[in-house]
Amino acid sequence: MKFFDDIRIGDRRELGRHQFTAAEIKRFAVNFDPQPFHMDEEAARRSHFGALCASGWHTTAACMRLIVDFHKRLAAEMISRGERPAKIGPSPGFKNLKWLKPIYAGDTVAFASEVIETRPSVSRPQWGVVRMRTIGTNQKGERVYEIENIAFIERRAA
Amino acid sequence: MKFFDDIRIGDRRELGRHQFTAAEIKRFAVNFDPQPFHMDEEAARRSHFGALCASGWHTTAACMRLIVDFHKRLAAEMISRGERPAKIGPSPGFKNLKWLKPIYAGDTVAFASEVIETRPSVSRPQWGVVRMRTIGTNQKGERVYEIENIAFIERRAA
Repeated sequence: MKFFDDIRIGDRRELGRHQFTAAEIKRFAVNFDPQPFHMDEEAARRSHFGALCASGWHTTAACMRLIVDFHKRLAAEMISRGERPAKIGPSPGFKNLKWLKPIYAGDTVAFASEVIETRPSVSRPQWGVVRMRTIGTNQKGERVYEIENIAFIERRAA
Repeated sequence: MKFFDDIRIGDRRELGRHQFTAAEIKRFAVNFDPQPFHMDEEAARRSHFGALCASGWHTTAACMRLIVDFHKRLAAEMISRGERPAKIGPSPGFKNLKWLKPIYAGDTVAFASEVIETRPSVSRPQWGVVRMRTIGTNQKGERVYEIENIAFIERRAA
């Protein structure tokens, strides 16, 4: 991760894309969200969704995977340049999780994050607080997913 | 699901318990959150968590599974009494997702939901809007998880 001091409001990072295959949608649903429209094409066709679509929690998990992979790549690049990546604190949670449209089997969703607020932490001066909005957009350009999170990110030593 | 008309502020439902085993924590992490403290006991011991703990997205998914199973049991009971279960609309999303404390390998978390607001939908008169808070409590009685959601629930025909 970049250090808090190098992060600006409006900074945007493309996290990557994920294709939600029918097989993966069903596998997630069997374990965590066994509702008919996430498990069976025919049942999904008869539901309000009209076709097999991913559990909303599958979306959050797939997005998290891209975020982790992004941070690993970024850390590797920083290390290869001889820099030390900044530490990130444990996530306290999220706000305003929105499943704006269904993600159907075969859809590919591109995820991107944008910094919407930065401030030094009052209680923990070695950390900065960064608020980000992460957005998922499908292959038709439709926004399907949105979530806001707060991260604690290390500041450079004074 | 009960009909909107039969739901009251303060109604509480015990959703069930889930034990987060080390094997399950690692399996989720490999797919969706491959960070060292979710995948490896030794690496977790050296991290700020101090021991292997579940991905926050594993918590949300495990909670969803209990919610779906709860609704299925409730629907089966209603049908066995000759009642028709109420329909639930697609979830628009969640607010204020809080991972209050880590969930460590071996922890058992009890999840419960409480109704915090009910109101008729203005735009869709056949639906009511129910706001709920779902809470996860570990075996020591510590609150580890909290999330708020809004559900659209069918009203009885006038």
